[in-house]
Amino acid sequence: MAITQTKTIEQSLTIEPHHVDRRRYPEGVAFMDGQYLPMSEAKISVLDWGFLHSDATYDTVHVWEGRFFRLNLHLDRFWGGMQRLRMKLPYDREEVTKILHNCVALSGHQSAYVEMICTRGSSPTFSRDPRQAENRFIAFAVPYGSVANKEQLDRGLNVAISETVRIPPKSIDPSIKNYHWLDLVKGLFDAYDQGGESALILDTNGNIAEGPGFNVFIVKGGSLQTPAFGVLPGITRHSVFDLAKEIGLPAEAVDVSRAELSEADEIFITSTAGGIMPVTKINGLPVADGLVGPVTRRLMDLYWKKHSDPIWSTAIDYRSQQ
Amino acid sequence: MAITQTKTIEQSLTIEPHHVDRRRYPEGVAFMDGQYLPMSEAKISVLDWGFLHSDATYDTVHVWEGRFFRLNLHLDRFWGGMQRLRMKLPYDREEVTKILHNCVALSGHQSAYVEMICTRGSSPTFSRDPRQAENRFIAFAVPYGSVANKEQLDRGLNVAISETVRIPPKSIDPSIKNYHWLDLVKGLFDAYDQGGESALILDTNGNIAEGPGFNVFIVKGGSLQTPAFGVLPGITRHSVFDLAKEIGLPAEAVDVSRAELSEADEIFITSTAGGIMPVTKINGLPVADGLVGPVTRRLMDLYWKKHSDPIWSTAIDYRSQQ
Repeated sequence: MAITQTKTIEQSLTIEPHHVDRRRYPEGVAFMDGQYLPMSEAKISVLDWGFLHSDATYDTVHVWEGRFFRLNLHLDRFWGGMQRLRMKLPYDREEVTKILHNCVALSGHQSAYVEMICTRGSSPTFSRDPRQAENRFIAFAVPYGSVANKEQLDRGLNVAISETVRIPPKSIDPSIKNYHWLDLVKGLFDAYDQGGESALILDTNGNIAEGPGFNVFIVKGGSLQTPAFGVLPGITRHSVFDLAKEIGLPAEAVDVSRAELSEADEIFITSTAGGIMPVTKINGLPVADGLVGPVTRRLMDLYWKKHSDPIWSTAIDYRSQQ
Repeated sequence: MAITQTKTIEQSLTIEPHHVDRRRYPEGVAFMDGQYLPMSEAKISVLDWGFLHSDATYDTVHVWEGRFFRLNLHLDRFWGGMQRLRMKLPYDREEVTKILHNCVALSGHQSAYVEMICTRGSSPTFSRDPRQAENRFIAFAVPYGSVANKEQLDRGLNVAISETVRIPPKSIDPSIKNYHWLDLVKGLFDAYDQGGESALILDTNGNIAEGPGFNVFIVKGGSLQTPAFGVLPGITRHSVFDLAKEIGLPAEAVDVSRAELSEADEIFITSTAGGIMPVTKINGLPVADGLVGPVTRRLMDLYWKKHSDPIWSTAIDYRSQQ
């Protein structure tokens, strides 16, 4: 590629009117500027502060067998983030709900990963003042994805702990779902170096915080614990508290030390991308007997059962695309 | 706008083949995928990890009166950041230099703000593994911009201190120039709320760190001090050390407390976007006599003189666009 590019540079110095993009994009539908578009057209200017300053918030809801799962909780968090970032959209909650629904309906995906994004945008006068920016909304529906693949869901993930410290709340409010991931990406590379499949990084006190895109729970003596400090208040994490209550399992958000993690009876991670996913190795060493535990299995089963429960999910009307 | 958009949603539910973008873009030229493009075409997919995870590094060099200023220092920092993020480009340093030059030459700008960006990109298999991503390079040249406008450069900026803490090095290595700015944006809004024109935020120990896109210096008893911990090693900051040495001014990187800032004889900020810029008010109170100080003026003059010095700058060949 280097050679071709160099050739291009030497051969022609003309400004081409339109960008020709040869990348592959997943099957899906996006919404931007009042237009429904194929994913290959869902692009933002490199001058949008959502990119240049990662000045954006977002949320991701999933669709399973034609139904949104807990959409309202995702919309609550998304609106909360926009308010704390002092961003405003030209759409109300009902309109955004309609847009998300239409992206899924137009995509035809029965199981989808649906993202709603608000970026600072940019200033029409090119000023550097974020108060003068026109905030922008983007949404898209792509095929459902999971942190853990089928095999990993069956045997449990091998997760490594990185010394990297999650960006603290004094710097960025973790309840604003954000794209500041360089700490998590560093943690992921650290984990790969140790032979792990994914990573957990630490909070400012050296306790376990979270991983790239997921919260973590430990099961000890029949009760659940998950880190309380400096983590994203995940919707799947929230669901685990709801499910635990339903089946009478004590669950609390507390500090979780590295030692407590290693001595757990069971460990699982939670994410909209995969739901409840078992972890059976930490730093290559088995968690308890190294098998997916009964509490984890029970919560996984219950979590997926809820996807057809009208209290927890809402149907997509795929005919609305005709 | 909300109304129009709602109409769009209700009227048509068709997928349009191409995005129609009505935004305004600055005059400039970008380079992506071997193509030179107008700024309006310089867009990245919302699925690029450079956006979704702010997994990117960049650098910005400026062109003044047809000459790059200290381009090599910017290239050094850019390559250092890519290496620490384990990113690779299909271009070597010589090719990137050529691309940056061509963006400026094609834009015709005599004074430009020139950005080079490396993003993680995305995985052609849509995997979540950053090791499988195809990193991508983007460059662009737009008109030169400054943190401080003409009036502010003459009378000095009014800067407010925010309690927000800059993302610490344990989370993200500040020597990797990055787009993680939500802490700086929060600081900026805090400053606006206090009537300030820009902001300074703190380090994890409560000392002064930096502001949105700039480092800060204080002048006390004829010597210069700038925060040492957790700040971007700015090229203009670097230049101030070089200039201070040239004129025999002592300069050191140390902890700078809020008290030391308030009691300074002079204060200035440094950025590629504006160079050396005077600060004459902190939280609305005058710095010393509230006038731009002699040391600041002397350094500003010297800084701009260096822009025609071949040791500090290199000429653009604008004919290369023909």
